[in-house]
Amino acid sequence: MIDNAQKSIAILGASGYGGVEFLRLAAAHPHLKVTYCAGHTSAGEKLGSLYPHLPAPLADIVLGDMDVEKAAQLADILVFCLPHTAAMDMMVAGYKMGKTVVDFSADFRLKNVEDYESYYQVTHTQPEYVQTAVYGLPELHRDEIHGSRFIAVPGCYPTSVILALAPAVAAGLIATDNIIADSKSGVSGAGRKAALGTHFSELTESFTAYAIAKHRHTPEMDQELGTVMQAGAAPVQVTFVPHLVPQIRGILSTCYATLTKSATVEQIHSIYADFYADEPFVRLLEPGQIPATKHVTGTNRCDIGIAMDQRAGRLIAVSAVDNLIKGLSGAALQCINLACGWDETTALPVVAQWP
Amino acid sequence: MIDNAQKSIAILGASGYGGVEFLRLAAAHPHLKVTYCAGHTSAGEKLGSLYPHLPAPLADIVLGDMDVEKAAQLADILVFCLPHTAAMDMMVAGYKMGKTVVDFSADFRLKNVEDYESYYQVTHTQPEYVQTAVYGLPELHRDEIHGSRFIAVPGCYPTSVILALAPAVAAGLIATDNIIADSKSGVSGAGRKAALGTHFSELTESFTAYAIAKHRHTPEMDQELGTVMQAGAAPVQVTFVPHLVPQIRGILSTCYATLTKSATVEQIHSIYADFYADEPFVRLLEPGQIPATKHVTGTNRCDIGIAMDQRAGRLIAVSAVDNLIKGLSGAALQCINLACGWDETTALPVVAQWP
Amino acid sequence: MIDNAQKSIAILGASGYGGVEFLRLAAAHPHLKVTYCAGHTSAGEKLGSLYPHLPAPLADIVLGDMDVEKAAQLADILVFCLPHTAAMDMMVAGYKMGKTVVDFSADFRLKNVEDYESYYQVTHTQPEYVQTAVYGLPELHRDEIHGSRFIAVPGCYPTSVILALAPAVAAGLIATDNIIADSKSGVSGAGRKAALGTHFSELTESFTAYAIAKHRHTPEMDQELGTVMQAGAAPVQVTFVPHLVPQIRGILSTCYATLTKSATVEQIHSIYADFYADEPFVRLLEPGQIPATKHVTGTNRCDIGIAMDQRAGRLIAVSAVDNLIKGLSGAALQCINLACGWDETTALPVVAQWP
Amino acid sequence: MIDNAQKSIAILGASGYGGVEFLRLAAAHPHLKVTYCAGHTSAGEKLGSLYPHLPAPLADIVLGDMDVEKAAQLADILVFCLPHTAAMDMMVAGYKMGKTVVDFSADFRLKNVEDYESYYQVTHTQPEYVQTAVYGLPELHRDEIHGSRFIAVPGCYPTSVILALAPAVAAGLIATDNIIADSKSGVSGAGRKAALGTHFSELTESFTAYAIAKHRHTPEMDQELGTVMQAGAAPVQVTFVPHLVPQIRGILSTCYATLTKSATVEQIHSIYADFYADEPFVRLLEPGQIPATKHVTGTNRCDIGIAMDQRAGRLIAVSAVDNLIKGLSGAALQCINLACGWDETTALPVVAQWP
Repeated sequence: MIDNAQKSIAILGASGYGGVEFLRLAAAHPHLKVTYCAGHTSAGEKLGSLYPHLPAPLADIVLGDMDVEKAAQLADILVFCLPHTAAMDMMVAGYKMGKTVVDFSADFRLKNVEDYESYYQVTHTQPEYVQTAVYGLPELHRDEIHGSRFIAVPGCYPTSVILALAPAVAAGLIATDNIIADSKSGVSGAGRKAALGTHFSELTESFTAYAIAKHRHTPEMDQELGTVMQAGAAPVQVTFVPHLVPQIRGILSTCYATLTKSATVEQIHSIYADFYADEPFVRLLEPGQIPATKHVTGTNRCDIGIAMDQRAGRLIAVSAVDNLIKGLSGAALQCINLACGWDETTALPVVAQWP
Repeated sequence: MIDNAQKSIAILGASGYGGVEFLRLAAAHPHLKVTYCAGHTSAGEKLGSLYPHLPAPLADIVLGDMDVEKAAQLADILVFCLPHTAAMDMMVAGYKMGKTVVDFSADFRLKNVEDYESYYQVTHTQPEYVQTAVYGLPELHRDEIHGSRFIAVPGCYPTSVILALAPAVAAGLIATDNIIADSKSGVSGAGRKAALGTHFSELTESFTAYAIAKHRHTPEMDQELGTVMQAGAAPVQVTFVPHLVPQIRGILSTCYATLTKSATVEQIHSIYADFYADEPFVRLLEPGQIPATKHVTGTNRCDIGIAMDQRAGRLIAVSAVDNLIKGLSGAALQCINLACGWDETTALPVVAQWP
Repeated sequence: MIDNAQKSIAILGASGYGGVEFLRLAAAHPHLKVTYCAGHTSAGEKLGSLYPHLPAPLADIVLGDMDVEKAAQLADILVFCLPHTAAMDMMVAGYKMGKTVVDFSADFRLKNVEDYESYYQVTHTQPEYVQTAVYGLPELHRDEIHGSRFIAVPGCYPTSVILALAPAVAAGLIATDNIIADSKSGVSGAGRKAALGTHFSELTESFTAYAIAKHRHTPEMDQELGTVMQAGAAPVQVTFVPHLVPQIRGILSTCYATLTKSATVEQIHSIYADFYADEPFVRLLEPGQIPATKHVTGTNRCDIGIAMDQRAGRLIAVSAVDNLIKGLSGAALQCINLACGWDETTALPVVAQWP
Repeated sequence: MIDNAQKSIAILGASGYGGVEFLRLAAAHPHLKVTYCAGHTSAGEKLGSLYPHLPAPLADIVLGDMDVEKAAQLADILVFCLPHTAAMDMMVAGYKMGKTVVDFSADFRLKNVEDYESYYQVTHTQPEYVQTAVYGLPELHRDEIHGSRFIAVPGCYPTSVILALAPAVAAGLIATDNIIADSKSGVSGAGRKAALGTHFSELTESFTAYAIAKHRHTPEMDQELGTVMQAGAAPVQVTFVPHLVPQIRGILSTCYATLTKSATVEQIHSIYADFYADEPFVRLLEPGQIPATKHVTGTNRCDIGIAMDQRAGRLIAVSAVDNLIKGLSGAALQCINLACGWDETTALPVVAQWP
């Protein structure tokens, strides 16, 4: 039975790109009522002064303090759209107050606290809650999310890479210790902070790589693909290289893996088709078709295409997501739908504007 | 009383940008059911093969013939998303069959058939229906649209220019025979046809003007501003210069007019505020604020900002619309909502994705 | 006689977009040798660390202090690529030391010091040198530049607007007190400073106006068009509205003026053709052709197109320049060529990369 | 001794992007005089009507017929900027007439005619000249180019991939049969033909892959890396996946290869530094630095950066080129400089415009 009762929701960190996009989606949700928005440096300001595109009534929301107690008094669900460490303690505090808490940051994604502390170079202050948290990727953890009140939203890159490879890993099709993920992301992934690295004149007509083989999203990919791998397979090890594309939204990940057994594209496609048969937000393309970021912009979809380099015995899986929706805000809302017992697809767009 | 009964709708010309955007909006409308889609050269094809971004079930729609009889058998409302002249006779045929007909082209916008024939260099085959048609700009013609079954959707440029200036013209504030509209449009206005003029490598990093002072949308501006002008004012005459911006969507129109009487920006703002007090899709910005196309992309809003060149006694009104929504598909749906007696705002987005 | 002796040149403010573009041009100049580059906050750094695109030997230049004495010891020509007021006193100091000084800022452009102080809201510390300075637009002031050692490089917007209208003003063709200049500029005009206003994700797919009828470049247009107007004409008064285009380079100005006498496009074109007959960097397009910014990107050219709104008796002149070359660095080099007695076109590109 | 005598040059296929870019470079070359330009469908037209950005005198060039005899009468050097097969016979005819012939297409790049015929699905009509042709990559074939009159300009993708990996292959550092090249190209690589695949509105904000593991440039990579590999190494086999970036120019290739022996980044960097020590157009970046396409746009440079995934024992080499210059027209000119005994760097730009 679906519980259609309205729930109240607080957005802490509403002034970032993730927050304002989540606000847009939540405001259109039939069972959610946004009752509190908080900003850090922007507390006291109207959202409309930060985001002139917002019309009333969203523009008139005055950002409150980044105060979990205040938020908890006003809302059933607390969503933290903040950088890592900023919400670490508030997540736990909100959870202890009986709230459903949702974290956009990496703080509770990694089950191995040492990995977290090593990749992020900080100390985890709530290590005991790492096991409480559910990794909010419904395609792998739907059942856990269903009953959960403590959700870690996956990173945008990991979402695209994990969904591209999970069926192959689960089927034992590919060598798990020899995976390459070459990902390309639009600029919005870098957030709203003004910097030379997000300067229009510096980025336009430029394409580059960054954080080669040392990006913080790498251990998420290893961990989550590890959860589906077959017994006896080698520990998952992804060589991950992110790139910056001169466009606003979208991630395309081109993933390379060595086949462990001979298979045709059709056979692999069929394995993927089974794996994602009931997924409302994964669209497996026909063999020969290739995803494009624009196809999923503005939607909560992940499009996946499968190809092979026959002579090298190599699988090439390509996925596309909107980094701010299926890669962040939409994923969070999908998890909230599940956690609240609502139809998982509620208020999540699937058709892109075109062009 | 609002009639919530579902109506069926046919989209003739679903394979163009206007048609596929209208389809997206209509498919999400609670009282509309798309029962027929037709293409011209693409009849027999699946929409998904033309638009790979479309997921099922929209992708699976097979385009039918451009046949008004067939469409009329299957739908209460016929929307023609075709170039001028292509739907001229079908509009009338559908109307005579008792259907509500909506035209995206210019065929029934101009009340003066000679103007139409002179600007478009074609012969009008249905001149007697020009008076039947309502110019589908709710901000000026809401009452007429309410009872209408024959709607001509305004041009995208005229929508932006008329909304920017109508309050000033209606108040007798500006000289009606000395108006300049300098408009800038994204590339989607040129449609999906592949041409050197829409080639990525030729347009990117380029900005240019075209059709200087001879664009076909000019007489619409003259006509519609003429409908609100005060008795005794000179015939409206707009010098219109369109420009092409290297972006996909959006029109920004910068309109210049000479004040006929002395007034402060605040006084003019107040006149505009009164004029648009109850409009759900016009947002008048505070004095000093200036619209941007991105603020309205993906929405049915028109944002308007007012400024003055004090020393020249000149009003400068700036407006922004999404050319494919408030400038086309959204306008059509807004008219359909009115014509069907539904809440005018049904299924029309007002919050832009950001960024 | 052309003096081909090599001269040394110092670039003060080499770390901004204007400075680094001037460096690129100067480094390829057969008679110039760059002997000193200075930075403000970046003194002591290698240019290559600020601009990773620069190869050796340019990358290896170490920025010196912003010290006019030091620069004057090492160079014959001092070019100041700094914001207004920053080089005001150094310009005069260098000049007094017998150097040729060139200013990228507005400090010495306006002959009316009150206008300068009112528009820029600062006090001019060297008002007596305002008359010494030559306004570095060769098309209007070639003879003065020829013998000058004190050059104020014009603003980018004024260059485009003045060149678009000077022939019409000089011929008494248009009403000088009723001019509108609607200009559109790429983002590089805003410089390299990281800000929300230059953020890729905020600007892409957006088009907007700013500083409506109050931009600081306005009095330059009035002043310079005033220098060519006929006796008895009303003081020049330009309503100037700049806009921001989502592209890196280029300014397109669409200028509107009321004809004072009846004339055909061909007659006006002929007046323009005479005015610019010997100009190496002005290309007058045939009637019916319209400039585009991409046509002049990377060049020192200004392209001009002429059109009319016959029914309104209105001239519409459209011009395009690369804001960083003909609008800044190239203009400076063109002036230096003239001031040094070299061929005016030396080392100034005229063919754009395409696409 | 450098031969500075002027030579005449004919450009056959001047109306494409490669041709017009070559024309721009050649027109600025001190020892070249362009004496004939030919077009296919555009014979008889002025270049300025095809490319309105071109100023006189280039704009006034009238395209002649695609006639090798005529071209050979007027020029010492014949450059064919045509699609594959179109110049196959003319290359040989010109060569037999004693001319220096240069081919932009793939017709004479592959030494294995069967590979050519299988990848391009055409019959080679001049197989005996395949061995006559030199693969025009000076970094690998400088000596052969020096004395050659028959030059096949490399493909743009192969240039970027081969330069990224040649030093590692030559040093026996990597497994030659397990190489992945993930390349990303701007849209200009697709040429000027108007198509849905080059439509501004379809490409902007989109990123996608194409021709996965079956692109025609693949065998060039295998062949050329094979020419430098150590005895006993396995045949080179590159898994090549090209992507389309929403920008005009630039290719970035991210190349992955498994190390055959343990090495530090510094050691590998040192091997690369030795390999490219005297190359005027290869810039090896310091370890930790990563190329970006914008750094090389408008130049004949290839920038290369080296990184490693230590835990996977994997080399990651990243290269950037301007696809129309170092990837095509500039490469051709570099070869011509060598073939004519001129300074290899003559008239080839190395500093990018910025921004």
